[in-house]
Amino acid sequence: MTALLSPQQLRQQIRSGQFSAHTSGQCQGYVQCNVAILPKDWADEFLKFCQFNPKPCPLVAMAAAPGDRHITEIGEDFDICTDVPRYRVWRDGQLDQEVDDIQPLWRDDLVTFLIGCSFSFEEALLADGLDIRNLSEGKNVPMYDTNIACRSAGRFSGNTVVSMRPFKPADAIRMIQICSRFPSVHGAPIHFGDPAAIGISDINQPDYGEAVTIHPGEVPVFTACGVTPQAAIMEAKPPFCITHSPGFMVVTDLPNSHLAIF
Amino acid sequence: MTALLSPQQLRQQIRSGQFSAHTSGQCQGYVQCNVAILPKDWADEFLKFCQFNPKPCPLVAMAAAPGDRHITEIGEDFDICTDVPRYRVWRDGQLDQEVDDIQPLWRDDLVTFLIGCSFSFEEALLADGLDIRNLSEGKNVPMYDTNIACRSAGRFSGNTVVSMRPFKPADAIRMIQICSRFPSVHGAPIHFGDPAAIGISDINQPDYGEAVTIHPGEVPVFTACGVTPQAAIMEAKPPFCITHSPGFMVVTDLPNSHLAIF
Repeated sequence: MTALLSPQQLRQQIRSGQFSAHTSGQCQGYVQCNVAILPKDWADEFLKFCQFNPKPCPLVAMAAAPGDRHITEIGEDFDICTDVPRYRVWRDGQLDQEVDDIQPLWRDDLVTFLIGCSFSFEEALLADGLDIRNLSEGKNVPMYDTNIACRSAGRFSGNTVVSMRPFKPADAIRMIQICSRFPSVHGAPIHFGDPAAIGISDINQPDYGEAVTIHPGEVPVFTACGVTPQAAIMEAKPPFCITHSPGFMVVTDLPNSHLAIF
Repeated sequence: MTALLSPQQLRQQIRSGQFSAHTSGQCQGYVQCNVAILPKDWADEFLKFCQFNPKPCPLVAMAAAPGDRHITEIGEDFDICTDVPRYRVWRDGQLDQEVDDIQPLWRDDLVTFLIGCSFSFEEALLADGLDIRNLSEGKNVPMYDTNIACRSAGRFSGNTVVSMRPFKPADAIRMIQICSRFPSVHGAPIHFGDPAAIGISDINQPDYGEAVTIHPGEVPVFTACGVTPQAAIMEAKPPFCITHSPGFMVVTDLPNSHLAIF
C-alpha cells in the first residue's frame, strides 16, 4: 500500500510517526535527497564547498534563510524538523544521537541543505533496462575513498568518495549518456576501469556499503557520491550538525524527470 | 588563403579544377560527408541498410530522386557530378578508375547518398580541449574490422568497422558526452577497453589507416566508422557504383553545430 502513497502523503505519515522506515523504493518517480543542517556560521562555507564540488555535492535545494523549516519548492507542506524518518545529531564531529523529530533541537541559526542522491539516476538506468548490480544483488552500493581531492572551501575539505557500479562497456556508454542528463544527482561518472588510478587499492573492500560482483568483461564505473559532503562535515567537526540517517531520506514532490536537463 | 573559403567558394574551385586536394582542414566548422552513388535497383536496399545501421551509416542527406545531381539542403549550388575533388568508380566491386568529374558517367538511375564523417565530432572534441591522437600525431585514424555484425538489408551485409581514439577515462567520459550530441556523425562510441571483446586481435595492426600511440592509463575508445557502408558495398559488388576517394569529401553548407541534437 505505502508504495502508492504520494510524496505528500508519505511525509504526512512520517510526521505523524506512522512511517519510520527506509525511504528506498518509496514514492517511485520522485526525487529523494540527502540532508545536511548546519549552523549559519558554517553554512556559508558549506554552500561554497558544494558550489566548488558540484559532482559529489549537487545541491537540489536549500532553505531560504537560517531558521527556516520550510522549503516550499520541494513540497508545499515540507517541514525539515518532522519530515525525515530518522535523523543523526552530531556534536564536534561525533555522532551524539539518532532521533525521529528535531523540533526540540531546532535553532534560529540552522540552515538546511538538500543534496541529490543516486536513487534518481538509478531509476532512469533501470527504466532503460540496465542491470544495477547493487539492486539486483540486494546490497548497499559499494563506496570508496579516492585520491581525488575536493576543492576546499573554508573549513571544508577532503577527497571525493565514489560509488561503483559494474557494466559491460556498451552499457557503461549508455549509463554515461543517461547520467549526463542528471547533473543534480551526481551527473556523469568521473572514472571507469582501473581502480588504482583513483587511489582505490582493493575493489573488493569498499570503504562504505557492500562489495558487488564484477563479471568477466565488465568494468567498474565510478560516480561521485553524496557521502563526500558528509565526510567533509565529519572532518570539519562543526560543534553542532544534523544529517539524515543513511537511507532515511527526504522525499520531495519533484519528479525525477524534473532534474533531467534534456 | 583557402582555409578562409566558404563551402560554396571551395565547391566552385573544385568544380573549376582550381582545387583538387584533400578536403581535411578545409572550411572548418562545416559538415563534410562521405559519398556513395548507387543505381536505383541497389539504392533502395542501401537506404534500408543505412536505416538498419545508423551508427556506422548515418545519412546526412540523399538525392530526392534517381538521376538528381542536386541536393539543395546541403548547398544551393551543389552538383554531385563536379563538386567532389576526387571520385572512385567501381565496377563489380573492383576499383575501375579515379576521376575528378563524373558528368561523363552520370546516369538517370543513379542515387546519391551523403554519409556523416568523423571530422564534425573531432572538431567538437578539439574545441573542448581533448587530444585527438591521430591529429596530434599527424596520422590517418586507425580503423579495425570487428565481429559486430551489421543488420543485413537485401544484398548489403557485413561487420561494423570502427575507428579508435585513445583517451584517459575521464576524457573518454567527456568524449562520450560530446559525441552523443552528434548522432548523424556516428554518435557515441560503441565500445571501449578490451579490443578482443569486439574481435580485434592486435590494436597495433589496424585494418585501415595507421596505428597511434596509446599511453599508459589510456583506454582505446571505438566509434562506428563510415568505412562500414563502403565495405558493405564492396562486398555486395554492384555492377556500377561511385564513391569519393578517401579524404576527398563533399563539403556542405551545414555548420557542424547544425548536427548537434542539443
